[in-house]
Amino acid sequence: MELLAEARARTGLPVLTEVVHPGHVARVYEVADAFQIGARNMQNFALLSEVGRTGLPVVLKRGFGATVDELLAASEYILAEGNDQVVLCERGIRTFERATRFTLDLPVVALLKQRTHLPVMVDPSHAVGIRTLIEPVALAAAAVGADALLIDVHVRPEEALCDADQALPPNEFGRLMNRLETLAMGLGRTLAVGRPLEHLGRGA
Amino acid sequence: MELLAEARARTGLPVLTEVVHPGHVARVYEVADAFQIGARNMQNFALLSEVGRTGLPVVLKRGFGATVDELLAASEYILAEGNDQVVLCERGIRTFERATRFTLDLPVVALLKQRTHLPVMVDPSHAVGIRTLIEPVALAAAAVGADALLIDVHVRPEEALCDADQALPPNEFGRLMNRLETLAMGLGRTLAVGRPLEHLGRGA
Amino acid sequence: MELLAEARARTGLPVLTEVVHPGHVARVYEVADAFQIGARNMQNFALLSEVGRTGLPVVLKRGFGATVDELLAASEYILAEGNDQVVLCERGIRTFERATRFTLDLPVVALLKQRTHLPVMVDPSHAVGIRTLIEPVALAAAAVGADALLIDVHVRPEEALCDADQALPPNEFGRLMNRLETLAMGLGRTLAVGRPLEHLGRGA
Amino acid sequence: MELLAEARARTGLPVLTEVVHPGHVARVYEVADAFQIGARNMQNFALLSEVGRTGLPVVLKRGFGATVDELLAASEYILAEGNDQVVLCERGIRTFERATRFTLDLPVVALLKQRTHLPVMVDPSHAVGIRTLIEPVALAAAAVGADALLIDVHVRPEEALCDADQALPPNEFGRLMNRLETLAMGLGRTLAVGRPLEHLGRGA
Repeated sequence: MELLAEARARTGLPVLTEVVHPGHVARVYEVADAFQIGARNMQNFALLSEVGRTGLPVVLKRGFGATVDELLAASEYILAEGNDQVVLCERGIRTFERATRFTLDLPVVALLKQRTHLPVMVDPSHAVGIRTLIEPVALAAAAVGADALLIDVHVRPEEALCDADQALPPNEFGRLMNRLETLAMGLGRTLAVGRPLEHLGRGA
Repeated sequence: MELLAEARARTGLPVLTEVVHPGHVARVYEVADAFQIGARNMQNFALLSEVGRTGLPVVLKRGFGATVDELLAASEYILAEGNDQVVLCERGIRTFERATRFTLDLPVVALLKQRTHLPVMVDPSHAVGIRTLIEPVALAAAAVGADALLIDVHVRPEEALCDADQALPPNEFGRLMNRLETLAMGLGRTLAVGRPLEHLGRGA
Repeated sequence: MELLAEARARTGLPVLTEVVHPGHVARVYEVADAFQIGARNMQNFALLSEVGRTGLPVVLKRGFGATVDELLAASEYILAEGNDQVVLCERGIRTFERATRFTLDLPVVALLKQRTHLPVMVDPSHAVGIRTLIEPVALAAAAVGADALLIDVHVRPEEALCDADQALPPNEFGRLMNRLETLAMGLGRTLAVGRPLEHLGRGA
Repeated sequence: MELLAEARARTGLPVLTEVVHPGHVARVYEVADAFQIGARNMQNFALLSEVGRTGLPVVLKRGFGATVDELLAASEYILAEGNDQVVLCERGIRTFERATRFTLDLPVVALLKQRTHLPVMVDPSHAVGIRTLIEPVALAAAAVGADALLIDVHVRPEEALCDADQALPPNEFGRLMNRLETLAMGLGRTLAVGRPLEHLGRGA
């Protein structure tokens, strides 16, 4: 907790962090700007209600065995607490195909944009799990209509304590951001570099 | 057959058409510029060898229950006949999610581009089956690295004899092509409008 | 809660009931003989630890998107609290097939019997969701090696508040029990009618 | 071909063998008592019609990505040729679970028994791919209502040219047959040991 607080203070960056237990929400609230609900907790309704009550933004990840309808139903637990700062996140579903870690379901991003006003985030890193695929998949996510991307970055990916195969080193992340900016222009969209949650937040 | 030949003669467009029986290949060869092997026949090895022997381009669709490895293995049946004009086509796999017709597996397009020199096509129409999703999904396919798109178009989709829900009317197809062209520029690629197979073909 | 306590007192039957929130465990402990962790909470690790600490038997249902390895890993959260009264429950996984509600994965029951000493339960009712299939599927579960079955029964299924399509009326349940008894003899096993948890429990 | 003919002559056993090409059907007809259509060819409609025309029994395996409805639809291609000697075979579908080779969908066996008069066969060997699971899964298949089983047997499984992990040696096959016989009695059914197709055939 202190580490997160210090990281936020020294960098000025907002903190988005996962919470897995309803009893931890109050403490995490002290240091976070937004909560993340992981795929395994998408239907942990006690947890959803608890983060809903904080009023902070919540990134709700789709369970890897959950349908789009269930994702939308889960978001209602947060919205029902009067918290409308919910970001839906597609991070891959489990299928027979194991060439990638999960099967990233990009068409449902476009479908979600039609069915809800909530912003939609895509997490290529966890979905694909292969470093060299992150860039093209992130570009595709932007092209299909994603409002935000969640990209794993590590100064030295080979030393990462977890998910080492999917983190981008800073230079590759920089190149991706440049390509995303060019793509966004081609699509007539603007890119809020480093501020994916800027329109959300405590003061929103 | 005569209809296909007449359509080709009157429009000057190349004909890509599906063949389902090894015994039909010789006749279809007379009127087609390229063969399509449907998803249900991806592992119909007698058929693959037969179209391989013609030397014409072959669009090989991924079976909806087939892995990437199996798609590549199937393509070897065509290549083994000395025919290297093979286009791999991702058209969606079968998963628990039914909000779309199939789950279009766009990350494997990027993976295929790393693992083979063969061009990769994407078929958003059959994969998604919802007209309003074709445009964003086609843009995503281009962004992830697809070399070609297969888009259902119909002058009056509501009168289509099959797949009426997914065909684009001409005006929407025109808008999609415009958006694809702008996107291609943003990606530093050029768009060969209406000539997806121009580098392939009888004389290639 | 009072209703559960009264039902237990009047019938003398042990109570197995689901708990979804770590904060409810203490209260449910007062009236239950065993806890059930539902499929959606299989990886709700805070909840698993909490029921683990009670020492009561726990029926842990496999998540419909979870592998066998993940089911076994989840059970460790309960075992790690010193509670070895864990029953694993197969209740169907989510696949492309929708002719039944889920796809009941019976071969993994035999696999689990090889890989762990924990008893394995099967829930045909939720997996299949079709009344007329419950009997043959329950027989198959017994034949593949299940230690216990979880069968929905309702005096008047058509009036059930939920899952009406899958509950057996008492006469069909009686016939199933008779057939199970005959099958058990054929398999050289004995049937503990109505006492699936008899070797577990508070006093165990 | 000569080998099959010789094996049939010397053992007196009927021959069931796979055919993958419509052009091979006439030759295989000379030496076989029944055709098998493999999972990858379930929707190879030219092949289905061709074996349909022979009048011999046909074992039609469910595609590992095919629904029950599609299996029944495929069988119509054989039935439409006036050949009603069709046996449907469940051999596992492809899911996210890889602890077994495929996920054997036993409840659909009971469903098929309700929806069609055709006999239903189960293939535990290919579905599970683990020798020690064949026996319990075969028992479960019998209990759920299968009319026939397809079991891989090899005199020395470790020397098998393919599928070595799933073949039963003769002594284990013998034990399985004994257990099946006892189970069948428990279920009130009789076991036609070694004559699964006896009511079908050339003279039927």
